[in-house]
Amino acid sequence: MLNAYDVSGEIDYDKVIREFGAKKIDARLAARIDHPLVPELFFAHRDLDTLLSGKFAIVSGRGPSKRMHIAHLLVYRFVKHLQDRFGSFVFLPLSDDEKLLANSELSQEDVKKEDYENLLDIIAIGFDPDNTEVMIDMMDIKQEVYNLSIRLARRMTANTVRSAFGFSGETNIGIQFYPAMQAAHILYPSLKLGLPVLVPIGLDQDVFVKLTRDVAEKEGLKKPGDILSKFLPGLTGDKMSSSKPETAIYTTDLPNIVKKKIGNAFTGGRVSVDEQRKLGGEPDKCVVYSYLRTFFQIDQREKCLSGEILCGECKAQLTGKLNSMLAEHQKKRESAKLQVSKFTKAFD
Amino acid sequence: MLNAYDVSGEIDYDKVIREFGAKKIDARLAARIDHPLVPELFFAHRDLDTLLSGKFAIVSGRGPSKRMHIAHLLVYRFVKHLQDRFGSFVFLPLSDDEKLLANSELSQEDVKKEDYENLLDIIAIGFDPDNTEVMIDMMDIKQEVYNLSIRLARRMTANTVRSAFGFSGETNIGIQFYPAMQAAHILYPSLKLGLPVLVPIGLDQDVFVKLTRDVAEKEGLKKPGDILSKFLPGLTGDKMSSSKPETAIYTTDLPNIVKKKIGNAFTGGRVSVDEQRKLGGEPDKCVVYSYLRTFFQIDQREKCLSGEILCGECKAQLTGKLNSMLAEHQKKRESAKLQVSKFTKAFD
Repeated sequence: MLNAYDVSGEIDYDKVIREFGAKKIDARLAARIDHPLVPELFFAHRDLDTLLSGKFAIVSGRGPSKRMHIAHLLVYRFVKHLQDRFGSFVFLPLSDDEKLLANSELSQEDVKKEDYENLLDIIAIGFDPDNTEVMIDMMDIKQEVYNLSIRLARRMTANTVRSAFGFSGETNIGIQFYPAMQAAHILYPSLKLGLPVLVPIGLDQDVFVKLTRDVAEKEGLKKPGDILSKFLPGLTGDKMSSSKPETAIYTTDLPNIVKKKIGNAFTGGRVSVDEQRKLGGEPDKCVVYSYLRTFFQIDQREKCLSGEILCGECKAQLTGKLNSMLAEHQKKRESAKLQVSKFTKAFD
Repeated sequence: MLNAYDVSGEIDYDKVIREFGAKKIDARLAARIDHPLVPELFFAHRDLDTLLSGKFAIVSGRGPSKRMHIAHLLVYRFVKHLQDRFGSFVFLPLSDDEKLLANSELSQEDVKKEDYENLLDIIAIGFDPDNTEVMIDMMDIKQEVYNLSIRLARRMTANTVRSAFGFSGETNIGIQFYPAMQAAHILYPSLKLGLPVLVPIGLDQDVFVKLTRDVAEKEGLKKPGDILSKFLPGLTGDKMSSSKPETAIYTTDLPNIVKKKIGNAFTGGRVSVDEQRKLGGEPDKCVVYSYLRTFFQIDQREKCLSGEILCGECKAQLTGKLNSMLAEHQKKRESAKLQVSKFTKAFD
């Protein structure tokens, strides 16, 4: 099942984008983006070609969670690459309201803490403060964004969001309203600067962009496009989740924790070193292989298949690389505490 | 039919409040309120007795319309009476967002103009600026109110608002969300000051208060009460409406317009002066009779029934009284332009 509130099972990416009506990123487009994750991770799009032919802004929202994990970093680093390469204005809304609406266990204090922790990770990425705006819905909602959500809500019926998101009559009215707020996030740069917007987003969230595309022009705003990413596997081979520590490496994990998590990571089905020397490893099932490739562009497929390199070696290599990366990020995350007010007045 | 978005037909008030589970205002309660419209116009309540036993705040919202009419003035004058008598904090939210959501013909600029015009009428009533707050949803929404709407929305399902308001799947998601925003308006003084809230409100709007009562305590806030009013007939004998000039006298109408409108007002079924002299008038059908009584506490029932007084005389009397009242209001409305910033920074 694949929708904005439920991703489960194996995903046939080609089939999904055919159904969604999105397009694959071809070599020409990939060359213009010029980033190692395109088209490997960011593989499909809507209107990316049109957007790249002029000036565009980027919106990259986040539902704050207890801790961000390294796949989140990857996305924000990609956004920064786009900002650097195309000089784009970046809008980063934190939708703590959606978090609260979707989880009846959370309190407003909980999400406020998460806002702050996530903001540090985002600032640590190095966005240009003069060309970036953060908005935290439950801390510094902008009047223009609220107003825009009202205008857009007027154009979305209950039936539309029900069929798009699988809501029922027992869904709360806040979650049913939220697509209008997310659409307002997406269209804020279009309202403010008259620019079309590119949304780098997980495939499961494409439906928000699609709904926004359906209403934008009716409100005199530019139709947004998106660039869609596949899902990175969790450490256990299943979905990576902010709330399941065994599936993800968090941005604040210390070296011994990273070592332990990678030590336990799913690498495939070989039962012994001898068997692996003989049959070779299984890179297509192996999370360590996937992470080395995605995070560090290290591809040891042949050595793995031939049995030349064993899981222990790959794990040690990944652990070392991740710990260097995280040490640097954690240092920047610490300095980010002094830069918060450059991005938002919410914590002043 | 009687619900928040549709009032039509004759109303059996006793039956309605029985069904709603509200209570009639008795002589003892009426004496504590001490206002000529209680219990004649404001006739029923929820928890008014409990509220009067301690300190309470008042919330009196308004969906701004092109022009306010004299029945709106009546309600705000009643609110001011309560503020003067009980020293209550008064919160006056203008729900231009709801207006926009409910009417696809309106633009944001339209409702902004209406906000201002309505605000002048409200300020002209003479509320104590030190004990009164105005909030205009689409101009100066308070972060606390937005956040509260999210917390309350989490406790209201689509099914609940559908059955309360008669919404369908084709209703837009903004109108379906709006009960949460209205509940946040109602509970804002409870959040801010810890006080229970009294809402003076038309019978058709009681459902908003009822929904709010169902969720307030779950969010640690005081359960609000209300004081319910009957409907005043329009000049034509039908419902008074801001958008039908022939049904209502607007606060900005000039003397000759008032004279003309009262001249055309519905007074009953007598076809000639002779018939009326013989049979007497029909005060229970007569709008002029009703207005003289409600606005000016002039009751000429006996003289009318006996045929001693004729429609022309009542009309002249009402015209004179209304024009004096409006002249004074219009003067205050003009001075209100200089006081706007005491109540809201929205127009600074």
